[in-house]
Amino acid sequence: MGGFFGITERRDCLADVFFGVDYHSHLGTRRAGLAVFDTECGLQRSIHNIENAPFRTKFSDVFREMSGTSAIGCISDTDPQPLLVRSKLGTYAICITGIVNNADELIRNYLDTGAHFEVMSGGAVNSTELVAALIGRKESFVEGIRFAHAVIEGTASILILLSDGSLIAARDRFGRLPVHVGKSEDGRAVSFESFAYQKLGFEDEAELGPGEIVRVTPDGIEQLSPPGKEKRVCAFLWSYYGYPTSTYEGVSVEAMRYRNGRIMAKNDRAAGFSCPVDYIGGVPDSGTPHAIGYANESGVPFARAFIKYTPTWSRSFTPPMQEERERIAKMKQIPVHELIQGQDLLFVDDSIVRGTQLKETVEFLYENGAKSVHMRSACPPIMYGCKFLNFSRATSDLELIARRVILELEGEEGFEHIDEYSRQDTERGRKLRKTICEKMHFASLEFQTLDGVVKAIGLPEEELCTYCWNGKE
Amino acid sequence: MGGFFGITERRDCLADVFFGVDYHSHLGTRRAGLAVFDTECGLQRSIHNIENAPFRTKFSDVFREMSGTSAIGCISDTDPQPLLVRSKLGTYAICITGIVNNADELIRNYLDTGAHFEVMSGGAVNSTELVAALIGRKESFVEGIRFAHAVIEGTASILILLSDGSLIAARDRFGRLPVHVGKSEDGRAVSFESFAYQKLGFEDEAELGPGEIVRVTPDGIEQLSPPGKEKRVCAFLWSYYGYPTSTYEGVSVEAMRYRNGRIMAKNDRAAGFSCPVDYIGGVPDSGTPHAIGYANESGVPFARAFIKYTPTWSRSFTPPMQEERERIAKMKQIPVHELIQGQDLLFVDDSIVRGTQLKETVEFLYENGAKSVHMRSACPPIMYGCKFLNFSRATSDLELIARRVILELEGEEGFEHIDEYSRQDTERGRKLRKTICEKMHFASLEFQTLDGVVKAIGLPEEELCTYCWNGKE
Amino acid sequence: MGGFFGITERRDCLADVFFGVDYHSHLGTRRAGLAVFDTECGLQRSIHNIENAPFRTKFSDVFREMSGTSAIGCISDTDPQPLLVRSKLGTYAICITGIVNNADELIRNYLDTGAHFEVMSGGAVNSTELVAALIGRKESFVEGIRFAHAVIEGTASILILLSDGSLIAARDRFGRLPVHVGKSEDGRAVSFESFAYQKLGFEDEAELGPGEIVRVTPDGIEQLSPPGKEKRVCAFLWSYYGYPTSTYEGVSVEAMRYRNGRIMAKNDRAAGFSCPVDYIGGVPDSGTPHAIGYANESGVPFARAFIKYTPTWSRSFTPPMQEERERIAKMKQIPVHELIQGQDLLFVDDSIVRGTQLKETVEFLYENGAKSVHMRSACPPIMYGCKFLNFSRATSDLELIARRVILELEGEEGFEHIDEYSRQDTERGRKLRKTICEKMHFASLEFQTLDGVVKAIGLPEEELCTYCWNGKE
Amino acid sequence: MGGFFGITERRDCLADVFFGVDYHSHLGTRRAGLAVFDTECGLQRSIHNIENAPFRTKFSDVFREMSGTSAIGCISDTDPQPLLVRSKLGTYAICITGIVNNADELIRNYLDTGAHFEVMSGGAVNSTELVAALIGRKESFVEGIRFAHAVIEGTASILILLSDGSLIAARDRFGRLPVHVGKSEDGRAVSFESFAYQKLGFEDEAELGPGEIVRVTPDGIEQLSPPGKEKRVCAFLWSYYGYPTSTYEGVSVEAMRYRNGRIMAKNDRAAGFSCPVDYIGGVPDSGTPHAIGYANESGVPFARAFIKYTPTWSRSFTPPMQEERERIAKMKQIPVHELIQGQDLLFVDDSIVRGTQLKETVEFLYENGAKSVHMRSACPPIMYGCKFLNFSRATSDLELIARRVILELEGEEGFEHIDEYSRQDTERGRKLRKTICEKMHFASLEFQTLDGVVKAIGLPEEELCTYCWNGKE
Repeated sequence: MGGFFGITERRDCLADVFFGVDYHSHLGTRRAGLAVFDTECGLQRSIHNIENAPFRTKFSDVFREMSGTSAIGCISDTDPQPLLVRSKLGTYAICITGIVNNADELIRNYLDTGAHFEVMSGGAVNSTELVAALIGRKESFVEGIRFAHAVIEGTASILILLSDGSLIAARDRFGRLPVHVGKSEDGRAVSFESFAYQKLGFEDEAELGPGEIVRVTPDGIEQLSPPGKEKRVCAFLWSYYGYPTSTYEGVSVEAMRYRNGRIMAKNDRAAGFSCPVDYIGGVPDSGTPHAIGYANESGVPFARAFIKYTPTWSRSFTPPMQEERERIAKMKQIPVHELIQGQDLLFVDDSIVRGTQLKETVEFLYENGAKSVHMRSACPPIMYGCKFLNFSRATSDLELIARRVILELEGEEGFEHIDEYSRQDTERGRKLRKTICEKMHFASLEFQTLDGVVKAIGLPEEELCTYCWNGKE
Repeated sequence: MGGFFGITERRDCLADVFFGVDYHSHLGTRRAGLAVFDTECGLQRSIHNIENAPFRTKFSDVFREMSGTSAIGCISDTDPQPLLVRSKLGTYAICITGIVNNADELIRNYLDTGAHFEVMSGGAVNSTELVAALIGRKESFVEGIRFAHAVIEGTASILILLSDGSLIAARDRFGRLPVHVGKSEDGRAVSFESFAYQKLGFEDEAELGPGEIVRVTPDGIEQLSPPGKEKRVCAFLWSYYGYPTSTYEGVSVEAMRYRNGRIMAKNDRAAGFSCPVDYIGGVPDSGTPHAIGYANESGVPFARAFIKYTPTWSRSFTPPMQEERERIAKMKQIPVHELIQGQDLLFVDDSIVRGTQLKETVEFLYENGAKSVHMRSACPPIMYGCKFLNFSRATSDLELIARRVILELEGEEGFEHIDEYSRQDTERGRKLRKTICEKMHFASLEFQTLDGVVKAIGLPEEELCTYCWNGKE
Repeated sequence: MGGFFGITERRDCLADVFFGVDYHSHLGTRRAGLAVFDTECGLQRSIHNIENAPFRTKFSDVFREMSGTSAIGCISDTDPQPLLVRSKLGTYAICITGIVNNADELIRNYLDTGAHFEVMSGGAVNSTELVAALIGRKESFVEGIRFAHAVIEGTASILILLSDGSLIAARDRFGRLPVHVGKSEDGRAVSFESFAYQKLGFEDEAELGPGEIVRVTPDGIEQLSPPGKEKRVCAFLWSYYGYPTSTYEGVSVEAMRYRNGRIMAKNDRAAGFSCPVDYIGGVPDSGTPHAIGYANESGVPFARAFIKYTPTWSRSFTPPMQEERERIAKMKQIPVHELIQGQDLLFVDDSIVRGTQLKETVEFLYENGAKSVHMRSACPPIMYGCKFLNFSRATSDLELIARRVILELEGEEGFEHIDEYSRQDTERGRKLRKTICEKMHFASLEFQTLDGVVKAIGLPEEELCTYCWNGKE
Repeated sequence: MGGFFGITERRDCLADVFFGVDYHSHLGTRRAGLAVFDTECGLQRSIHNIENAPFRTKFSDVFREMSGTSAIGCISDTDPQPLLVRSKLGTYAICITGIVNNADELIRNYLDTGAHFEVMSGGAVNSTELVAALIGRKESFVEGIRFAHAVIEGTASILILLSDGSLIAARDRFGRLPVHVGKSEDGRAVSFESFAYQKLGFEDEAELGPGEIVRVTPDGIEQLSPPGKEKRVCAFLWSYYGYPTSTYEGVSVEAMRYRNGRIMAKNDRAAGFSCPVDYIGGVPDSGTPHAIGYANESGVPFARAFIKYTPTWSRSFTPPMQEERERIAKMKQIPVHELIQGQDLLFVDDSIVRGTQLKETVEFLYENGAKSVHMRSACPPIMYGCKFLNFSRATSDLELIARRVILELEGEEGFEHIDEYSRQDTERGRKLRKTICEKMHFASLEFQTLDGVVKAIGLPEEELCTYCWNGKE
């Protein structure tokens, strides 16, 4: 997915942007970049591959190479960014977060005009260059961004650094992803994560609305285009993507997860589940706070029966040993034998998508002597692959375990009863749970309800995107 | 402190040692190294600085450079290791964990014989080379290691890779630090951390006793020198140093911390503390499981009111910006506002040494709106600077906050009543706690008792080193 | 200036292109790049800065990163190349040699169509991307290249690697720079320098004519557009730019320089110069063979009175020490005292442009005890700054020492008598030489005549560009 | 062989030592190192592998890492240097040039005392550490160096940087290699090559005598031990090893080679050789000036019929492609066809050792169309492998082509007539030349005479080591 961060202020901002971008490292693992504006050198740019070393290590030389009073940067899970672009709108740096699903069509249309793209190894067009090309079709940045938002199928939040040092920020059309603006005595910050600028001394000033476009200078925010009326914030920001310290739409991720866990515990209790286990645990990392909430509500002790080796495995930097890939994938989780051996355990995971990894985790618990493993998903069954952010990375809906089980149980017909399968109080719903339990060797399985998630978040359901659970666009 | 890991087996062991050493990354942040034995090339060696990039990143080229069926490696908080040494005992690789406090005297004696050291930049003798020099004074490795143990003031566990591919391992004289041996179908592993070899498919075979020396081949363990009778395992391995997944003397670190937290909660209850707080939290990382235990016992919800930014801050890789040092130190802890703002909080820290960092943490909580912050130390007041492992890094006892408060309260005379100050049920003990509370703005303060720690560990008190708490050698 | 090299053959060609590009290192010092076509991965690309390490060092990892049966690469004195481009003509890699003098105008026209460029740090458009943009305005590569040649003021030879592995090569419109094609059993090579492919086992197959465009496959050459009638090969390729082992238009650089030196010696003899010197030497590197020719003809011993420190100073890799720049510039030339001290010396330099460096060299010879230093320029006085290749790097004609002396002697009026100043058999010509002698402390000064240069090259004068000497376009 | 360079002066000397060591790059291709003394940090050290990048590239960061008023450094063809050593003589940095042939015995003796070496990958003892160990056996540096000189079989010039910033320099026992001292206003330089410090503003002050030991401070030279009486300067310093700009014992390398070439031409003329060739050329690099001298004397034109590609092949940096090794070896020499095709050529090489490379070179000339290739060796036939500097790298005398031919002609008996074979005016001598001619396809072959070499150098024969030619020690 990725995330971006920018600052425009009255003093050199490079250190702030360096740390601000670094605080987005949980959002991507492939590329990172910085673009800096300096009155003397104009726009400078630096991009590094961060697959095998953390952001701060890779960018440690940047202070010798650049300086400036305005800068933007990003962590990118896809293409190298930011790009420096020159069009009739001027010369500027640009980065985006989101995904363009209809890139092929948009590229074709653009090339038909006789224009070209400078492409990447392999020949693919950089999504950010594509967005810049779309913006450049119109006579101003506002019109261009609106045009890009209109024609892109997918999601694109945009951050632009102009040659006068000011920033243009645009939240994606339906506000699926966040864009925050912070202020300090020295200037302004624009960020995916608000805690990033807060740690750097900025206070919350604004959260852009869906499709809203603003120009940001050290002195303030100028609205270039007002927010749209429809909002569909991705509910997974809280369930899974967000860092525990993140806050979106005023709602803390960590606190939402505690509430969510508590609701699940209450639901379980209401459904007659007596919680016959020794410990409640979370599947790290995002399952953990859901589990804390569940444990706090249920009164069963919370325990960390297996733990990630974070000193070096916070990111899976791997040596070039293809044959070891699979083995390496399992190396970061380490069991605490005394908390597994002979114990009845209940685990909460953030979600169950394809189930592959979770199956391995549960097997690993049984191999380490667990007596029973109950499983809870912190969200409803995923029935539709995400087409707005592509976070589930499922190439087809049939990779989703819920879909596969339905197909197995009653063939394609079953897809007409997805709503029933989703709920726990129907025959189909019980069958789905039972079948998954058998496949995965769960002692029991339950999903958070859609109502439960919405309540834990606390926003009106119509402002949330719940497409992957109920197919509602 | 550092830690070492070695393997001797019937197949290429480099990948195993690569990952095995990496699992010791929590024990040091400065240097790491590998030495490999191969029948064709003999002993090969590679050392890297790991201050600005994780072990796996720095050693990712090692698979192109080396291979072999036996290898040792280490994470070192001090000097570059392992070293390759040639003496009349042969050519071998060696690494150590521990500290040599009387190095100057030992170096002088050695140089007087007309021998020399190859020294490091700055002119200091590498501690590992010093240990090798001591071993070389005698006619065999066993005699040499016994001699080194006898003359070294401090602690030295030793791992040697011989030119025939076998390993010699020696636990330090009083067993302050652990040495485990694991076995698999293919061979044997020697490790500070047993979870390191378990993740690689080895099972526990033995834990060396104090001063015990063994020779390890793929086929088994041969005892070269039996364990001594006196044992003084560092109690801080469980309280603070160990990784949650570590097990020493058969006792799990994570489980010990849960028990320790529970005992603290019981003690508090017994002392009439009603736990008037909204959340229990741990000061990350090592305080967290103590807090989970406390929360589970007290029934007050556990919550993570502030969280480390682990994706990149699991280690404090820092760019070369001296002026930013202090600021950077505070950057890894990020508050969750909803869990702090207007809340009464109780935090458990692993220990209170100088109190500097803890003071900043508490201030940071108040700045973020905490109503009150109660503090619990998971061990008794630290009254004596460690002279066996130097872990407290206090250059003098007077840097210890407990000592400083005693001096303030009644001058040097107070040091005659250290036992009273340590306990909570004496007038002096209450004064100490009250004074620290005032200095640090704690709503309340209590320390785990010595009995409590010992009980949580579960070993006989006489097998534990409790010097830093009660001065008992 | 730069140079390019490409291969398309029936086996993996990466090693050939690696060494083939490396053989163009004398043509540029800033950037180098490779683009490779592989049926599986498509087009891959790698670019490195070669200012501080030689090509082979910087690209030593390329064999782990890429492979393929067709590839192009270049040494570039300006922008990073090759670029990967996608336009309606397809996806391809492109590199150029030459210069685009009217870039601003061409960029403006292109941006007016609503298209964009991805620009470099600082905001400048990459010249190669500009050429690609021009090519993309038309419906085929041939039309596009013809269009680019028509609108570009300057010089652009073009090498393109298509997505089917074939190459398109185009020599610049007036053939100022060379493009050779070589053949072997396995395929074809396209190269600026023919010795590059000869060393790799290819034989000369063709030298493109001015503006000629061809498609090259492993099986042969297909002419896409015939050569133009006007040819203006840069005469400086022989006098200065070419490597001694280079051959252009069938004429060896080294042999041309020997002939050129001999003609100069004959001219001197005819003019009554008795050559009263101990040694003839060349100003390294390109002056040397001119001097060998002169010495061989005159009978005066050739000697290397000062020598470059080539083991590391073949390229001026410099550490980041601004204050040392000037000092470093003088470090590569080292005197041989016995050949200077008390000696009368005659030096041949390839040309005299601004005279700054030559003045320092002569001072350095006098400082080392030379009795007298006679100077010969291997070409006529440079009267016009090059506008086709910009090799003289003079920002204005008035930086040329000949122009400055004329201005000094009789003001701007003198520029009407440039032809006279150029010749040695006129009053004005003698004055020019005398004045420069005085300024530069030469014992005597003479220039090769235009006839002499042309005769040494051996091509018809009308096929050579002699603009910088006589202003003839 | 390697070379060292050191400075002690009243200002920061790092830049001077950086460039001074770089000027020794022609003497080694494997390792380079610097050690710097600074009153604050003591002795600092940096070593890099220079096999794949030039010295200046590899050490470009050293200015950020170190500074100081005294420093030493070296280019090493063998082990990493300088080393920092601590012994009862103090802490110091040390580097050497030369070779220790009886290392095994010396190491054994040292280890028997109970001391140790820190060894290199593979287990070998660093020669420099061995020399330091020998020095440390005695009570002072002077006694220690004398002891080392006495027991070492081979050659060892030594440069030491003490902890007070002064230098100790010792020329090897018989003065086979040079040690120069230069002075400037700011201090003193010690160097293998005198042109190195001359380019940095130092003037010649002294050339140490054989075995002489001095202490050097910024203020002057103090003799610690006087020179010995016997001197055996390696004659190959002039014939082959020295850089053309080098001067040893007051004799310029370039000028010696011109004289040497002239003597060869005179000898040839006297022997009735009419020099029926079109061009005289040198086998680059060291053969070139011998050839210039020959050409100047003979009146036949000098020409460069093949030329090294110096822009990147001045050093053979090679990518990790084992299979390409042989091919790469031939890549640096590039033919100039017009100077070879159909021509009769005479080449001068510095020497003929095993003849392998020369054979390939001659084949390459014939393949390029040479009509005939006459060969001249700038020194007599090499009959004995060097045992003092090991420069011939022949593991046994029988690798020498002269020995092999003698063996072929009359078996081991022939070795009793080596003197006859060496001379050209004997039957045996003529047979040797004829046989080599046939093996190597030379049109004719002659060697410089011993008298000729000695005369070209200009020193008394007894001060030169001529062992490899006549076996005289």
